[in-house]
Amino acid sequence: MNSFGRKFRVSIFGESHGPAIGCVIDGVFPGTEIIYDDLVKEIARRKSGGKGTTPRKEEDEPIILSGVLNDRATGAPITIIFTNNNTHSSDYEKLLNQPRPGHADFVAGVKYFDYQDPRGGGHFSGRITLPIVAAGYVAKQVFCDVSFNAELIEVGGVVPKIPAHAKNDPEVIKAIEAAEAEGDSLGGIVECEVKGKGLEVGFGEPFWDSVESLISHAIFAIPGVRGIEFGDGFQAARMKGSEHNDPIGPDCLPVKNGAGGVNGGITNGAPIKFRVAFKPTASIRKPQITMDFEKNKMAELVVPGRHDVCFALRTPVIVEAMTAIVMADLLELADIFDEYAPESGNTANE
Amino acid sequence: MNSFGRKFRVSIFGESHGPAIGCVIDGVFPGTEIIYDDLVKEIARRKSGGKGTTPRKEEDEPIILSGVLNDRATGAPITIIFTNNNTHSSDYEKLLNQPRPGHADFVAGVKYFDYQDPRGGGHFSGRITLPIVAAGYVAKQVFCDVSFNAELIEVGGVVPKIPAHAKNDPEVIKAIEAAEAEGDSLGGIVECEVKGKGLEVGFGEPFWDSVESLISHAIFAIPGVRGIEFGDGFQAARMKGSEHNDPIGPDCLPVKNGAGGVNGGITNGAPIKFRVAFKPTASIRKPQITMDFEKNKMAELVVPGRHDVCFALRTPVIVEAMTAIVMADLLELADIFDEYAPESGNTANE
Amino acid sequence: MNSFGRKFRVSIFGESHGPAIGCVIDGVFPGTEIIYDDLVKEIARRKSGGKGTTPRKEEDEPIILSGVLNDRATGAPITIIFTNNNTHSSDYEKLLNQPRPGHADFVAGVKYFDYQDPRGGGHFSGRITLPIVAAGYVAKQVFCDVSFNAELIEVGGVVPKIPAHAKNDPEVIKAIEAAEAEGDSLGGIVECEVKGKGLEVGFGEPFWDSVESLISHAIFAIPGVRGIEFGDGFQAARMKGSEHNDPIGPDCLPVKNGAGGVNGGITNGAPIKFRVAFKPTASIRKPQITMDFEKNKMAELVVPGRHDVCFALRTPVIVEAMTAIVMADLLELADIFDEYAPESGNTANE
Amino acid sequence: MNSFGRKFRVSIFGESHGPAIGCVIDGVFPGTEIIYDDLVKEIARRKSGGKGTTPRKEEDEPIILSGVLNDRATGAPITIIFTNNNTHSSDYEKLLNQPRPGHADFVAGVKYFDYQDPRGGGHFSGRITLPIVAAGYVAKQVFCDVSFNAELIEVGGVVPKIPAHAKNDPEVIKAIEAAEAEGDSLGGIVECEVKGKGLEVGFGEPFWDSVESLISHAIFAIPGVRGIEFGDGFQAARMKGSEHNDPIGPDCLPVKNGAGGVNGGITNGAPIKFRVAFKPTASIRKPQITMDFEKNKMAELVVPGRHDVCFALRTPVIVEAMTAIVMADLLELADIFDEYAPESGNTANE
Repeated sequence: MNSFGRKFRVSIFGESHGPAIGCVIDGVFPGTEIIYDDLVKEIARRKSGGKGTTPRKEEDEPIILSGVLNDRATGAPITIIFTNNNTHSSDYEKLLNQPRPGHADFVAGVKYFDYQDPRGGGHFSGRITLPIVAAGYVAKQVFCDVSFNAELIEVGGVVPKIPAHAKNDPEVIKAIEAAEAEGDSLGGIVECEVKGKGLEVGFGEPFWDSVESLISHAIFAIPGVRGIEFGDGFQAARMKGSEHNDPIGPDCLPVKNGAGGVNGGITNGAPIKFRVAFKPTASIRKPQITMDFEKNKMAELVVPGRHDVCFALRTPVIVEAMTAIVMADLLELADIFDEYAPESGNTANE
Repeated sequence: MNSFGRKFRVSIFGESHGPAIGCVIDGVFPGTEIIYDDLVKEIARRKSGGKGTTPRKEEDEPIILSGVLNDRATGAPITIIFTNNNTHSSDYEKLLNQPRPGHADFVAGVKYFDYQDPRGGGHFSGRITLPIVAAGYVAKQVFCDVSFNAELIEVGGVVPKIPAHAKNDPEVIKAIEAAEAEGDSLGGIVECEVKGKGLEVGFGEPFWDSVESLISHAIFAIPGVRGIEFGDGFQAARMKGSEHNDPIGPDCLPVKNGAGGVNGGITNGAPIKFRVAFKPTASIRKPQITMDFEKNKMAELVVPGRHDVCFALRTPVIVEAMTAIVMADLLELADIFDEYAPESGNTANE
Repeated sequence: MNSFGRKFRVSIFGESHGPAIGCVIDGVFPGTEIIYDDLVKEIARRKSGGKGTTPRKEEDEPIILSGVLNDRATGAPITIIFTNNNTHSSDYEKLLNQPRPGHADFVAGVKYFDYQDPRGGGHFSGRITLPIVAAGYVAKQVFCDVSFNAELIEVGGVVPKIPAHAKNDPEVIKAIEAAEAEGDSLGGIVECEVKGKGLEVGFGEPFWDSVESLISHAIFAIPGVRGIEFGDGFQAARMKGSEHNDPIGPDCLPVKNGAGGVNGGITNGAPIKFRVAFKPTASIRKPQITMDFEKNKMAELVVPGRHDVCFALRTPVIVEAMTAIVMADLLELADIFDEYAPESGNTANE
Repeated sequence: MNSFGRKFRVSIFGESHGPAIGCVIDGVFPGTEIIYDDLVKEIARRKSGGKGTTPRKEEDEPIILSGVLNDRATGAPITIIFTNNNTHSSDYEKLLNQPRPGHADFVAGVKYFDYQDPRGGGHFSGRITLPIVAAGYVAKQVFCDVSFNAELIEVGGVVPKIPAHAKNDPEVIKAIEAAEAEGDSLGGIVECEVKGKGLEVGFGEPFWDSVESLISHAIFAIPGVRGIEFGDGFQAARMKGSEHNDPIGPDCLPVKNGAGGVNGGITNGAPIKFRVAFKPTASIRKPQITMDFEKNKMAELVVPGRHDVCFALRTPVIVEAMTAIVMADLLELADIFDEYAPESGNTANE
């Protein structure tokens, strides 16, 4: 159950406070360039440290255990791990009896008969998105001339003036500081766009494995997602057919992009465009009322541990990674993309 | 690629104007009650005929080819087909050169090298949702005391006063009549709720196979979906943690349902609640400008054939079916649901 | 569970005495030639009628429900069904209490809580190999210049002088007549060879999805198989490395074929060669002692119904079909076979 | 492609001379006992060191990275790795131009465009069976009262007098010494038996996922397997139905075991019994003629590196592991095994 994809297949493992977390990536074209320093740079994009992110700092140094030789994928599974060093497990003891609102603590206990690792959320920790970013790097490398670009376009209801720099937007910073002061947290909305000459017509399969089906499947795997919409999204439900339809133009491309780049589940050559809603961080300092199962009564909980005020700040690279993982699988499954045959390696990078 | 699910697995086949469409449903608990008349009633819920739906009328009579004996699932695959009778294939000839805006005509031609069946949209037709409703009936039968209820809560921007009767709401009818008069079409929003004592804590798998991941995967397979949101949905991105979090109450249930019944990808016992945005019907009578590849210039297109003004009207039973298919698979995969062991058959119905 | 393959995926359904049996074949290259008359001819190879085969005669007329248009695969799932007409269900009533030795009657009853269809073996019937032959025909059509040829090389311990004509070999006929006279049955051994210019180096995946793993998986799905061996087979265990190893020659092909065409799970360009052991038909007229669960004591059973004396006679085309299904999936999964890209259709037939 | 199983799912990774090899095991019942010292003991059974095995010695110390807490499976994926220390990579340089007969060197080069890791066979190395033994240990722990026992019953054509002690049998030792002196190698046959009260009727699925299909699939993944046969095996093809059939006795068990414990693909309660033929080690010191692609002519090759004279000596624990992996998956997939529900943990060990 901890795998995704048919040919380009990503498996994840690890707990927040165990020895290591990591991923196994199967089905990477032999010859794909895997440059360690580029991988490190991509991972740095997910790091905490900015305003509104957790003070837990990890080295997050990737260790490639298999599948890469001389900066190239060998064709065998690629395994990348990260050791966990900076753990404060004692923070989590009391949560066994007093599950955090908005967290998986309680449901995990029921599902796993209390055998799950409760420290730091265990396998349910947001830290599991770290190997996802590593797998996303590998997925992006499989492509020629396709870019994946996600940006935070809204934080706690504030729309930053320059989306690409939400972290530095004064209004956003003000909202974060206010929430932090209250011991509260904020959500946000991320927009992702996939485009480039390599994004040809024909990615996706009719019905079950439509592009939207697979992307939404992967995106909802990211902890804290509450919604996703493509192209005109929910607004499409309020438009007329004559407004929403994208006519096909002389260059075989749609003349506008209300569909978000997908018709009948299959890419139409226009950029794939979608938005993702992230909830506010569940773990807050502000006291909350929840059940204390030891004392068998409702009680006030102040969540311990170190948490992001707005984890959405760190998610754009994760959204990109998930999207690249989906698209890499569709690329490898498709019969039509001759130029991506493995002989060519990832010539985009050459 | 035309299958979904791991244990409760649905495969679909068929083209709009071919001899038959149908589904194969694998992994049904032996002993599950399959009552032919109930199946027919469920299918009738998807039928056209009301205001705003297509005048194409099919008998839609299910033929069970395998897997059922004496009104019970045998444990072998269940195959249900529907023959196609009322087809007007000649309507579709010109669309090969002049692809309909908002349709898969063009992308299918590229992907399948023009070998696809173009008549009535072929395998891309909305008619493929008919066997989905049949599979959904079977999926619902697997459950004890779980109800699946979807309703149209908005049509073309109009919120009906009584959601359950959107078809009869005077404002909705007025909007449909206006769109019909213009040769245009409308979209809509469907809300779905899953609840009951059988909806225990523990459905869903952490990460990749979260409840939201699987439901969204299946829902985006329905032609014409543009967005999905769970619980507080996109609004959650504008809430604070202290507002959005659902504290756990003394009965082990959340005291409110901002999460839509799911924490960490796993059901928490509250109703699963989500909304789906459907676009307006793509095929409209109103003239549209699109490319005519034969004449090699932009040209006006009046889409022929018989189409729904608002296909969203027919989708609630499809949304329920998809949700039941997902949940049946999670039920069969879960290790924790002893009372659903096959010995008991589907005692809910007894 | 009733499917096999990742991209070229075959699902089967149906019971011996239900309305119909059939298969859904997913992942067929669009443009693959599917000639109805050729399909009928292939199916005729499995028919009964010869010495030693059952007197149950079925028309075995394939009905193509979906996925084929103008003699070409459209790219959508291909569904082929066969109706069951010549059924004698009453023959099977007593077997519920007195399970046939060598049959699945008893285990099916336990596994399916007696909800399974017992008539004619239900889903466990050898008749389910009929849609397999249909799927095998489609699989063979996907290939350019690859032949699949299986022959019965031994019947009841008798090695026919001309393997290809085992049915007509006088010694074989004599052995069959003797077994028939005693109300007994015979087994046999089938040898299968896959070869041709299209059988390039590189089919198969390392480890789990080795060519031998997948072929043996599919072959053991055929009812009545007891063993399989590749190349030198069991004899290899008695050879020295210097005897068994196949050196690579100047044409990049092995100079002999002790490995049966596969190294490290991957085809080496030499013919794939393997042998399959079929047990004698389980259903025999000769009285056998078995448990009578109604009377709760051991009792004599004379199996009713119409059965093959040696069903192995009818299996070569089934072995070929299974092998072609496996190889078609490996072909579609492989990244290296450019010339088989779908643009070319199945040019081998043109 | 590097995974096997549906619910109990094993993925493997690593190259012979890379940093580490390992496995990820998904779907382990939470609460299953995982005792580190027992794991180490099981792994020791695969070690070299005896007569006829390679002088390459590795510590083979398992490192559990995830999924185990307090000696119990948490329900999250279990990852176990082994670092590679004792590598002589320079031994393998010349093999790029002069591929070893009987090895995957050549086919891997074609399939992976020479990007594969050639050192020590890379991902194709027999060393990959080390994590399989670790996964097999975990698989065995899932069971209550089921034993998996494999023994070497024949070495180079010599049948040891006491099968369980083939390594110490004087005739076997003599044969190994003779082969070693010639720089040659030997094969062998392993017999495996699965039995116990926990081996109930009902493991396995009809048709594609028959017990024999899945076991043979996994067994042929072990490098060097040439054949497999169940129960009477190839000999069944020479028996009459009245000889081969296993009547069912009053205790619901077959009175003899010609079928090897499986009817219609489903366990019948008798021990599962099968034999596996291993070829002689491909890498031999004795000079062999093969193609030298650098010099473009046939040339003599003396394979460098450290190799087993008879690797079959080390395979019984691997055969057991593969069988346990298959059976654990069938156990978890089956709906009928209530007593194995995860609440009970692995009570067999308590």
